[in-house]
Amino acid sequence: MNTNEKALKLHQTYQGKIATKIKVPVDKPEDLTLAYTPGVAAPCLAINENKENSYVYTNRGNSVAVISDGSAVLGLGNIGPEAAMPVMEGKALLLKKFADIDAIAIVLDTQDSEEIIKTVKYLAPTFGAINLEDISAPKCVEIERRLINELNIPIFHDDQHGTAIVVTAALINAAKLVKKEIKDLTVAISGTGAAGSSIMRMLKRLGVKTIYGYNSKGVVDIKNYDKYNFLIKELLDDGVISTPVNHDNTLKSIMVDADVFIGVSAPNLVDKEMVSLMNKDSIIFALANPLPEILPDEAKLGGARVIGTGRSDFPNQINNLLAFPGIFKGALMAKATKITEEMKLEAAYAIASLINDDELSEDYIVPSTFDDRVVKAVSEAVRKVAIESNVIRK
Amino acid sequence: MNTNEKALKLHQTYQGKIATKIKVPVDKPEDLTLAYTPGVAAPCLAINENKENSYVYTNRGNSVAVISDGSAVLGLGNIGPEAAMPVMEGKALLLKKFADIDAIAIVLDTQDSEEIIKTVKYLAPTFGAINLEDISAPKCVEIERRLINELNIPIFHDDQHGTAIVVTAALINAAKLVKKEIKDLTVAISGTGAAGSSIMRMLKRLGVKTIYGYNSKGVVDIKNYDKYNFLIKELLDDGVISTPVNHDNTLKSIMVDADVFIGVSAPNLVDKEMVSLMNKDSIIFALANPLPEILPDEAKLGGARVIGTGRSDFPNQINNLLAFPGIFKGALMAKATKITEEMKLEAAYAIASLINDDELSEDYIVPSTFDDRVVKAVSEAVRKVAIESNVIRK
Repeated sequence: MNTNEKALKLHQTYQGKIATKIKVPVDKPEDLTLAYTPGVAAPCLAINENKENSYVYTNRGNSVAVISDGSAVLGLGNIGPEAAMPVMEGKALLLKKFADIDAIAIVLDTQDSEEIIKTVKYLAPTFGAINLEDISAPKCVEIERRLINELNIPIFHDDQHGTAIVVTAALINAAKLVKKEIKDLTVAISGTGAAGSSIMRMLKRLGVKTIYGYNSKGVVDIKNYDKYNFLIKELLDDGVISTPVNHDNTLKSIMVDADVFIGVSAPNLVDKEMVSLMNKDSIIFALANPLPEILPDEAKLGGARVIGTGRSDFPNQINNLLAFPGIFKGALMAKATKITEEMKLEAAYAIASLINDDELSEDYIVPSTFDDRVVKAVSEAVRKVAIESNVIRK
Repeated sequence: MNTNEKALKLHQTYQGKIATKIKVPVDKPEDLTLAYTPGVAAPCLAINENKENSYVYTNRGNSVAVISDGSAVLGLGNIGPEAAMPVMEGKALLLKKFADIDAIAIVLDTQDSEEIIKTVKYLAPTFGAINLEDISAPKCVEIERRLINELNIPIFHDDQHGTAIVVTAALINAAKLVKKEIKDLTVAISGTGAAGSSIMRMLKRLGVKTIYGYNSKGVVDIKNYDKYNFLIKELLDDGVISTPVNHDNTLKSIMVDADVFIGVSAPNLVDKEMVSLMNKDSIIFALANPLPEILPDEAKLGGARVIGTGRSDFPNQINNLLAFPGIFKGALMAKATKITEEMKLEAAYAIASLINDDELSEDYIVPSTFDDRVVKAVSEAVRKVAIESNVIRK
């Protein structure tokens, strides 16, 4: 059986991947008088007196909703809510496995931004935090922003920031390995959607001076400003994306003399010749899944020194699994009301710091997804920032 | 410690009552290639081809959402969504314990009927069925009806029908015990809200000829028709509630010559003198919780022969726990699209039938909530009706 056949069989055999589990004793009728009526009235009244008690007497403080409208699922596109469910259950499984968080997979039968925002707001008293997932760009950015402003529980769109955090961690270590300063790097990024725009912002915050953008319509150029969606306009407004002095609207033209290429776009956009135009000791993160923008062997032929992909069968798997379990764990531990830019950046440093200078090599710039230290390091970093910056419930 | 203190301690110690559990192996990185990317794309695509596959490759077919707006929680009233959560988690716990169903507790930050309806419709692709809970009357009836019509997954408002099913089961056996025909019974019901109105409809369907209604405004009388909410108007329109020939607007006046009193209203509304006005071998189901309309000892002094309450510390606990786990189990097993009146009635007969004639006594008209046979009998009855009446997904 190939992977697809095995995956279908697994999902069918177990009928999905996530179930519920009772946490309290319910062996005899008396147990129910405490867990259910009449005893349950006591915690209800305690929460009615002070809503903060919902974190004391219910599972809220360890719960995350994984919510999607199915509009941009994996690389499969707009396959709708029912078909998105295996991914959401998978995400819930990963949150349980790696951070012992009880995550509930929810798919919504609407793809309207306002309706999604309203629904998530209605659901908010149920959960400790919200993970938005596989919602199409650029509306995902608008939805996340509105929810961050209008709710006081952590909201995190993993497709934007999870990838950005791990890319940032990988770049911190890759730059260290090739002995280049972050501030001196020229970075060419293919993909200006959810992940691409968040990566750009985070690298800018990290200190990268020059970032060029490319998408299916060509090189991002300030002279085309009016043609762009609000996401790209903002990146230009904020000076995150620079317009290359010389370009012919091809990806190749912005890779000339770049130190780093990051792809969050589509398979096979890059060849070895394009890589050969980059600066010495070039860094390639080709993250299109399952087929990257360029395969590692070809990138090496073009002269790349450090190569990362999204895949587990190559070295340097740049996988947001390194980020989101710890991000949520830390935010819940801290009673954070938001997940801030500073928390995300500290999470990236925490991931990068797990590889010490002796271990650091071309094939080891990020820890393995099964490295136990990752969730601890990330959650501790996030918790610390939340408390120090006082972004917490009182 | 008293029950309240013990219940608070339990909820705090375990931080709520329900968690998630992973159903598939996730011990090594390869496991994730099947449960998550890239393998997860296969079940996504299979569901995209045919939405029915959401019942094959995800946990949907065993999942129920327990949804409340917190507007009528236990006897505590409108305490809001956060404070309703311990009850919803309790319900989820009971569905797991008694029917091995994975139920998700959800509380909504809106009490507007249209918004609740819309939100539940948006959530529908996530779940196999929906249990509405602790939503105030009469809007709960409108919400349930609309959802039954507009969705094709089972919708069940337990506060209405769960109690009605178990009351019906208890009455079948109580009538048999006192050797009265169902069709000859005169039933006085105190409470015309969610539970009361559903009990009335179900007893009418069972064959009871005369049902009188009483609520905080007095005896339900057709001459006051215009003053009633739509729920009571419909009960009058449909000939479910009869107007007593003689009454002085007191509960006492409709208990004269009644065979059965059913209370789903408030503590201490009934005394032994009122019971003594009823027909011989009277049946009293005093279900206000935790304090019933009349305590069993006093009802006995008034001459009642069979007495049931909602409490576990008296005989004949009329508890909807006898109904809802099996109702949902049967509906999910059958792939039912609705829970029909016929399914509910058969569920009541199934519960009643677990007590055979030799066992039947004044103190044993309904099985114990911990009787293993109950869920099996109810789910099998519901499953059978669903399939025979062809109310199932194709």
